[in-house]
Amino acid sequence: MTFDHLWSELAGVGRHPGTGGYRRYAWDRAELTLRDWFTGCAAARGMDVERDRNGNLWAWWLPAGWTGDPAGAVVTGSHLDSVPDGGAFDGPLGVAAAFAAVDALRAEGVRPRVPIGVVAFSDEEGARFGVACVGSRLSAGTLDPDRARALRDGDGRTLAEVVAGAGIDPAGLGPDPALARRVGVFVELHVEQGRVLDRVGAPLAVASSIWPHGRWRLSFRGEANHAGTTGIADRHDPMLPCAATVAAARDRAVQHGGVATFGKLAVSPNGANAIASEVTAVLDARAPSGAVLDALTGDVFADAARHAEAEGTAVEVVPESRTPAVAFPDDVATRIRHTLGGDVPVLPTAAGHDAGVLAGVVPTAMLFVRNPTGVSHSPHEWAERDDCLAGVAALAAVLRDRAAS
Amino acid sequence: MTFDHLWSELAGVGRHPGTGGYRRYAWDRAELTLRDWFTGCAAARGMDVERDRNGNLWAWWLPAGWTGDPAGAVVTGSHLDSVPDGGAFDGPLGVAAAFAAVDALRAEGVRPRVPIGVVAFSDEEGARFGVACVGSRLSAGTLDPDRARALRDGDGRTLAEVVAGAGIDPAGLGPDPALARRVGVFVELHVEQGRVLDRVGAPLAVASSIWPHGRWRLSFRGEANHAGTTGIADRHDPMLPCAATVAAARDRAVQHGGVATFGKLAVSPNGANAIASEVTAVLDARAPSGAVLDALTGDVFADAARHAEAEGTAVEVVPESRTPAVAFPDDVATRIRHTLGGDVPVLPTAAGHDAGVLAGVVPTAMLFVRNPTGVSHSPHEWAERDDCLAGVAALAAVLRDRAAS
Repeated sequence: MTFDHLWSELAGVGRHPGTGGYRRYAWDRAELTLRDWFTGCAAARGMDVERDRNGNLWAWWLPAGWTGDPAGAVVTGSHLDSVPDGGAFDGPLGVAAAFAAVDALRAEGVRPRVPIGVVAFSDEEGARFGVACVGSRLSAGTLDPDRARALRDGDGRTLAEVVAGAGIDPAGLGPDPALARRVGVFVELHVEQGRVLDRVGAPLAVASSIWPHGRWRLSFRGEANHAGTTGIADRHDPMLPCAATVAAARDRAVQHGGVATFGKLAVSPNGANAIASEVTAVLDARAPSGAVLDALTGDVFADAARHAEAEGTAVEVVPESRTPAVAFPDDVATRIRHTLGGDVPVLPTAAGHDAGVLAGVVPTAMLFVRNPTGVSHSPHEWAERDDCLAGVAALAAVLRDRAAS
Repeated sequence: MTFDHLWSELAGVGRHPGTGGYRRYAWDRAELTLRDWFTGCAAARGMDVERDRNGNLWAWWLPAGWTGDPAGAVVTGSHLDSVPDGGAFDGPLGVAAAFAAVDALRAEGVRPRVPIGVVAFSDEEGARFGVACVGSRLSAGTLDPDRARALRDGDGRTLAEVVAGAGIDPAGLGPDPALARRVGVFVELHVEQGRVLDRVGAPLAVASSIWPHGRWRLSFRGEANHAGTTGIADRHDPMLPCAATVAAARDRAVQHGGVATFGKLAVSPNGANAIASEVTAVLDARAPSGAVLDALTGDVFADAARHAEAEGTAVEVVPESRTPAVAFPDDVATRIRHTLGGDVPVLPTAAGHDAGVLAGVVPTAMLFVRNPTGVSHSPHEWAERDDCLAGVAALAAVLRDRAAS
């Protein structure tokens, strides 16, 4: 089976032997290896590959006799990068399934009447530069190119420097004027990142919407001092208001029916016998609506300000990204459900995706593949082979419906 | 003035231009530069330098006609390394003042009748390998050489590898059998790390005791997962019990009349959109007695266990170091106060020092120099020049009393 072969080629790339998780960060060696894999997959299928101005990779299967640029295409794909110690499926499953679906159509002798595209968007997770969906957001015009160019990774290198090193002109980053014309419909297949499908006993779902979400950097600033000789009353320890804010954020999330996570923290100077001078914590928050998200984050920021003041410290809140709610168009989802036989569950998700970004520009849908652990962004992320194959068959049906009928 | 010259030579070594703090870690380039400075200072004064089996540096001014090994010496000095972004005074002030005191005696034409030594102990702060007073504790026999050799720095290099790179045989690390014979009395001059002398208006104090203190590593382990799609109830987020424990530790310290600090934290995988799998926090705790310290830390560990369990996570507590209370001998302190004129304040301290380690082996005392900010382990650490000179004069008086009378 072609999917198994595609999948096996990915297994070893960027996998950390200690954690078993994947470390595939935008433009690093592992991610560049995956880009080569993408190009090789396209070449093996006679598809033309192009790398657009923002580094997104597109492979095209054009109708016989088609000349010039693709237009009105049915496009499927996802991304190849990971979070730190992420799972195997988040991203690559959608790309491998896309090529496998192309193979299924080729094996049937299908001759597409509109172009079929496979895409891998750049830097979806934002693990390296702190901003998610950089490639799709630049192309869709929802990320300012100046801001993108100035983003820095943990080593202090700017995104502009890094993409230049990969042969992309940083000055050319920005909206892709051809995007809306080229892509008639975009369907992203993705591993489910919760346990709903496992609970309802279905291998696949179609997405209804994506919750609005955002990231904010909270920098608590106090005064470094000796951990032994500084009396408790003389301290301005930024670790304390940070801890109080983190501990309270879960209750804030429950109270508002959203989620709030502090998963990234940096302490300076980070010495065991020195009271910290600064603690920076990144809040990831999501909620069913923008208004609820505002209320939830507003409460967290108020907690932070109150705790910081009580400790004689300061806190600064810097928004890093904000993604509005996405409602995938009903007609596209309905047609997919009809194509797949009608009884496919429809799910909202609180995860951001390139499909959510593209939904602002072109008709877009998502397919989710059951994840029996419900765990994602972790080595425990999982999808059974049969469910992956069901996803490939579903994608093939969608491509056939759109391109070959 | 000789002190000014000595002090100016140190100003630029290992100073971070951004923070203004010093980064001088055991056996790194900055600290090796300071070791060269020490050797140069000794050579300029005709003192023999030896580096002992644990890397501590000793400079000897022997009585005329002295042959063989030093014995019964009056020794003064401190350490040259720093915490991350530490101040200029913590450590180097005691070494520079020692050489300046030697100069004062030489200028007076003093001829010592017992050996005078200047010492710089290795790796006092423990910033690199996580354990404080490595050099003095190895020599005093209170740090197991096997444990020391296996310590790792942030880059994963063992202490054994690092000292071997500096030309020290790792197999030779361990107790110095000559220490008790060579050192008749050890006096360490150190910047005060609180504001007592500023409040009472005195430039110098003599130490009475050091509070017992220790470090414990608390590792909270949960389950990495997606920050968006994992419901609050499905989470096992180790960040939450860690935050609750950190936030409560201050109250525990106040309750017991000690101090408790979390200044060092590591999060894994440390991604903004991933629930952490593990958070490790280092507790530094100190108290007036060992029993109080046990009660204080016991409460913190119980908090950690309770919060970890409530979150469906685990916590492991690993002791990193423990230093018992040190009472400096009364007779040594009394003789120093008498030498200095009698009305010198006597202070306890909650900071660990090489003098506290040596107190288990030889008669030991400490002199503190007023710090008007009360801040230490920070670029704001300070001592006025006049107070430093008062410290030099006091050290010279002590050396004169011990070695030349």
